[in-house]
Amino acid sequence: MAQKGDLMTVRQDIRVVDATIRDGGLCNDFRFEDKFIKDLYEANVKAGVDYMEFGYKASKEIFNEDNFGKWKFCKDSDIRKIVGDNKTSLKIAVMADVGRTDFRNDIFPKKDSQIDLVRIATYINTIPAAVEMIEDCAKKGYETTINIMAVSKAKTEDIKAALDILGQSPVKAFYIVDSYGALYPEQARQLAELYCEKAEQYGKTVGIHAHNNQQLAFANTIEAMTQGVSFLDGTVDGMGRGAGNCALELLLGFLKNPKYKVAPILKIIEEHTNKLKKQGVKWGYDIPYMLTGQYNTHPRPAISFVKENREDCSKFANELYDIINS
Amino acid sequence: MAQKGDLMTVRQDIRVVDATIRDGGLCNDFRFEDKFIKDLYEANVKAGVDYMEFGYKASKEIFNEDNFGKWKFCKDSDIRKIVGDNKTSLKIAVMADVGRTDFRNDIFPKKDSQIDLVRIATYINTIPAAVEMIEDCAKKGYETTINIMAVSKAKTEDIKAALDILGQSPVKAFYIVDSYGALYPEQARQLAELYCEKAEQYGKTVGIHAHNNQQLAFANTIEAMTQGVSFLDGTVDGMGRGAGNCALELLLGFLKNPKYKVAPILKIIEEHTNKLKKQGVKWGYDIPYMLTGQYNTHPRPAISFVKENREDCSKFANELYDIINS
Repeated sequence: MAQKGDLMTVRQDIRVVDATIRDGGLCNDFRFEDKFIKDLYEANVKAGVDYMEFGYKASKEIFNEDNFGKWKFCKDSDIRKIVGDNKTSLKIAVMADVGRTDFRNDIFPKKDSQIDLVRIATYINTIPAAVEMIEDCAKKGYETTINIMAVSKAKTEDIKAALDILGQSPVKAFYIVDSYGALYPEQARQLAELYCEKAEQYGKTVGIHAHNNQQLAFANTIEAMTQGVSFLDGTVDGMGRGAGNCALELLLGFLKNPKYKVAPILKIIEEHTNKLKKQGVKWGYDIPYMLTGQYNTHPRPAISFVKENREDCSKFANELYDIINS
Repeated sequence: MAQKGDLMTVRQDIRVVDATIRDGGLCNDFRFEDKFIKDLYEANVKAGVDYMEFGYKASKEIFNEDNFGKWKFCKDSDIRKIVGDNKTSLKIAVMADVGRTDFRNDIFPKKDSQIDLVRIATYINTIPAAVEMIEDCAKKGYETTINIMAVSKAKTEDIKAALDILGQSPVKAFYIVDSYGALYPEQARQLAELYCEKAEQYGKTVGIHAHNNQQLAFANTIEAMTQGVSFLDGTVDGMGRGAGNCALELLLGFLKNPKYKVAPILKIIEEHTNKLKKQGVKWGYDIPYMLTGQYNTHPRPAISFVKENREDCSKFANELYDIINS
């Protein structure tokens, strides 16, 4: 596929999605101070970010509200406390996991909500359940995206079949989600090409959400973009589960549209995320995450390793080999 | 240019160069304990690394020996203390800066040295002086590479002219050096294509040395490789000036040749580089380095910012704007 765009001009189809609270919330059980959320909301508006993801719409039947901060559940009333009527160009997103969201009861009609976009997260084997959610949310008036997780483990023929089903749903965008941070740039380009071909066929757009296990989250994001991917996820200082994500400040510094500004995000780093790190909230590239990325596997064992303050990474590499092959 | 190689097979032209001591030495004035150097040498042998760069051959007329550890000068006697007769497949490299090396006096005939490769570092405007050094070192029996620094600032027509001159010298490889960590993957591929075309014309090979200011050092290294680049620089845990380099453990984990092993390098991280970090030696991705990378400028102001333990990165972004445009 020919490259779309270049390093000098603006691509009008680009949408930047700040996923700091949602993916970053996985590092601190969504326990953010309201001031952080409010400051980040205002910074995103100033930075020209297109969407801000507030968190999950998690089922209160499955998750105990006492064990998490409120952004695990993203009640409309909590969002409204931050954004009021949201008279800005920044759209509000939430994530809803297939099988872990009581979407019929917890997602209200759009007219009663500040939420604009529901991002539906699925694995490749639960596409029909995802379609049910897409249809429900679309009927209620929301934009939707479908975020197919752990795509580095999915077979190409299954991805094609999934996109053919999803193409016939009202979903707005297909998302490439490299949950394990296992993709190399040439794989990100190949997947982007495949997704973009299917998207064109069905009149959809494509997004990418990358993890930084191999220090490739930013590279994979902009390389997928060269193949026509439009929705680009980033998080402040890369805050996100395990090795974290594509850093929003890298992405905003790269994009040529003058509406995008890095400075407001630098302020959030100075005033908030650096403090979270000092308080002991952990994320970012580290050897154990690199290893789960290289092994193309879930970061769970690496997260435990880091939590336990272990440093014997060569022993961990052997353990991981056994975990995967047992 | 068609892609060279793929994600399944081995490219026999690949050579991995560990530059930890040389580029990492810029973080601690080359004050490494002999045990680190010895352990790293042995780890590189086990890991299948092809070259290990020990440091600089700096002029003792220009640099005071009291102000630096010995690897700033790389005396043959010091190298011999580590490697003995070096009866291994690992070759020994040193770097010699144009204008800062007393090469006629300090580089002895190859028969009296354990050094195999002299890497000659130049800017684009001192190519004739570099050729003089290449010819001197080649006559003495060494392999040589030419490392053209700050290539992100060089004009394409100057690079072409430089490679046409160097093509007629006895140099073995042309190196792409992204000193400022400013290149994006598509630029790394374009430069690699240009260098490889010239290299083919003159019977040379091509190398890349990348910096991690925008978390792109590994990506740019493997993307340049897809265009035919053969010599790939890495450093343990990315240790190197400022934002550091392509992490050797990422590179070794990526390459498919079974001779390359990650585990010995993980041991060095556990036993040495993690300790250096705890002792206060600083390197690696950080916001001020990201900014100098985005601005395509020397990391000097960012290095000062980090040394002074400043945290006001949004103020720094403004200062940088003034420094560059004044």
